[in-house]
Amino acid sequence: MASVKPIPILKDELDIVIPTIRNLDFLEMWRPFFEQYHLIIVQDGDPSKTIKVPEGFDYELYNRNDINRILGPKSSCISFKDSACRCFGYMVSKKKYIYTIDDDCFVAKDPSGKEINALQQHIKNLLSPSTPFFFNTLYDPYTEGADFVRGYPFSLREGAPTAVSHGLWLNIPDYDAPTQLVKPLERNTRYVDAVLTIPKGTLFPMCGMNLAFNRELIGPAMYFGLMGDGQPIGRYDDMWAGWCVKVICDHLGYGVKTGLPYIWHSKASNPFVNLKKEYNGIFWQEEAIPFFQSVVLPKECTTVQKCYIELSKQVKEKLGKVDPYFNKLGDAMVTWIEAWDDLNPTGSNSEKIPNGPITK
Amino acid sequence: MASVKPIPILKDELDIVIPTIRNLDFLEMWRPFFEQYHLIIVQDGDPSKTIKVPEGFDYELYNRNDINRILGPKSSCISFKDSACRCFGYMVSKKKYIYTIDDDCFVAKDPSGKEINALQQHIKNLLSPSTPFFFNTLYDPYTEGADFVRGYPFSLREGAPTAVSHGLWLNIPDYDAPTQLVKPLERNTRYVDAVLTIPKGTLFPMCGMNLAFNRELIGPAMYFGLMGDGQPIGRYDDMWAGWCVKVICDHLGYGVKTGLPYIWHSKASNPFVNLKKEYNGIFWQEEAIPFFQSVVLPKECTTVQKCYIELSKQVKEKLGKVDPYFNKLGDAMVTWIEAWDDLNPTGSNSEKIPNGPITK
Repeated sequence: MASVKPIPILKDELDIVIPTIRNLDFLEMWRPFFEQYHLIIVQDGDPSKTIKVPEGFDYELYNRNDINRILGPKSSCISFKDSACRCFGYMVSKKKYIYTIDDDCFVAKDPSGKEINALQQHIKNLLSPSTPFFFNTLYDPYTEGADFVRGYPFSLREGAPTAVSHGLWLNIPDYDAPTQLVKPLERNTRYVDAVLTIPKGTLFPMCGMNLAFNRELIGPAMYFGLMGDGQPIGRYDDMWAGWCVKVICDHLGYGVKTGLPYIWHSKASNPFVNLKKEYNGIFWQEEAIPFFQSVVLPKECTTVQKCYIELSKQVKEKLGKVDPYFNKLGDAMVTWIEAWDDLNPTGSNSEKIPNGPITK
Repeated sequence: MASVKPIPILKDELDIVIPTIRNLDFLEMWRPFFEQYHLIIVQDGDPSKTIKVPEGFDYELYNRNDINRILGPKSSCISFKDSACRCFGYMVSKKKYIYTIDDDCFVAKDPSGKEINALQQHIKNLLSPSTPFFFNTLYDPYTEGADFVRGYPFSLREGAPTAVSHGLWLNIPDYDAPTQLVKPLERNTRYVDAVLTIPKGTLFPMCGMNLAFNRELIGPAMYFGLMGDGQPIGRYDDMWAGWCVKVICDHLGYGVKTGLPYIWHSKASNPFVNLKKEYNGIFWQEEAIPFFQSVVLPKECTTVQKCYIELSKQVKEKLGKVDPYFNKLGDAMVTWIEAWDDLNPTGSNSEKIPNGPITK
């Protein structure tokens, strides 16, 4: 029987990527908003475990065995026992847009009590331009009821293509372990009704919990690094991607937005476990962030891939001194691009991947 | 009879500067919030006209004759028939903080219907640090219920001293004449519950309608330029100040915040009159903004005055080509600093000015 529901925007141009280790009951709450989209589920941990997906969703699911089979030796660039594995989903998608969400994120309500269609807001953000070159004090000038304020240069009012839409979280804020430990009871209750462009030249802490991006514009830079099993660091996967993505967006003239939409983040992760994962990152970011703040990509870097390979060289050269981990990471960045290009041959974006996954 | 009202914060350390051409009836609405502060009223236009100030306010008032008497030949740097004259008030103040507000701005209400004490929010903004070196996705990390998010470098969590607090406007947005003409009915109804730091290296359109700053940190850069009578430009006074202030704050390591508080902007100015004032600015800003985006101040510029004099040289050198107006403006910038230093001799900040104004 044909569905009589209205077709949602970008239905056939967007994949929802979900990394998980458990049954996806959380999707029940998202049913009205996600049901007509295609899901890519990246199963982390034990591949013999069966992940239950609620009835009626259209999905493909990859476990570690699938990743190893599809990527072969290059599967070494995909993290294991860490939600960083989600970036495999970005790689196998053939769509123009990606939305990724954690399985402990639920539908939030706006101050009027209305349930927020997070995906729809992300799509709005991605389909309208960004303003990275000058700050607009009334925030997103492309939204209804707003515009550029007096003194905003007219030559910049066309904006820049939007590559990333970074959404926020009500309830449990995305704090690091030390802050979690110090403020165990803090909840985010402040609904800030704004979307804004992070200015060119400014880095930000990109959280992977509620994130959308234009895969065609920036996909190959959305690598979530080497985290988790066998690595000296965790919980920096999205941060790493954010630093790389922002530097490359700045270089290529793309915009990165943050703000709306909110999701409801249900449960704080264990701060003691988090501290163990994070402590190297807390230390290393003091070197990594100044590095990314001063990175210069040469003019010849005209594609995301070229930018990313150049960045991998500079990472090894400049951060290799901080810890040998960064040499390994620099190599993995190259492997990631090779794997990306294998699965996404130029000019045939719709080509099927060599070894198909379990598809429902 | 002694007042039994509680003493408001910074009562003796802040002046409220109001430029006006009319009776200040608008103060009635602000009485609960302003009554205990000292006002500096800068009367624009015909000095023979008497400006009525509601009973009970503590104020000093300067008209053009006062400005001419106090500054002598240096009064040429203070604009006439333009609200840019307000910067004279910054110069004669002896306080650490300034709040300036237009006389068509009323008390706004927050979404719960509560009247917003704009001055109190500005003071909060000025007394807490800024975060110009890295973006915090949950906005002001120093506000109640918020903090730095995961991935924010710990070395940057002390922040930077806040020099400027730029407040916003509900109802009539601060649009340029072309936007006013195109969208005559647009009203700003979006209450964005956030204060954020404008990142280092990013310029913004600073509006003088609802603005507070730390005079000790940045006062000498708050020059509102040559506008109005006898000048080829108007409505760029605050923009000019904003560009200069931001570049100098970035150089000296100070922060600039924007967002809360809102005021209620009651009446749109005439877009046809505005267009006449603005058209040169609309044209010139396309050159001026790239100039300010690329300005480099040498290390030797360790005070606001030194920065400002250096900036005046670069303005003449780089923007003088755009229009001879910028040579005149560059000279006026120097005169402004000379006048500032005359009235604010180093080490005697509390010294009385030579020729007193009309004081109530």
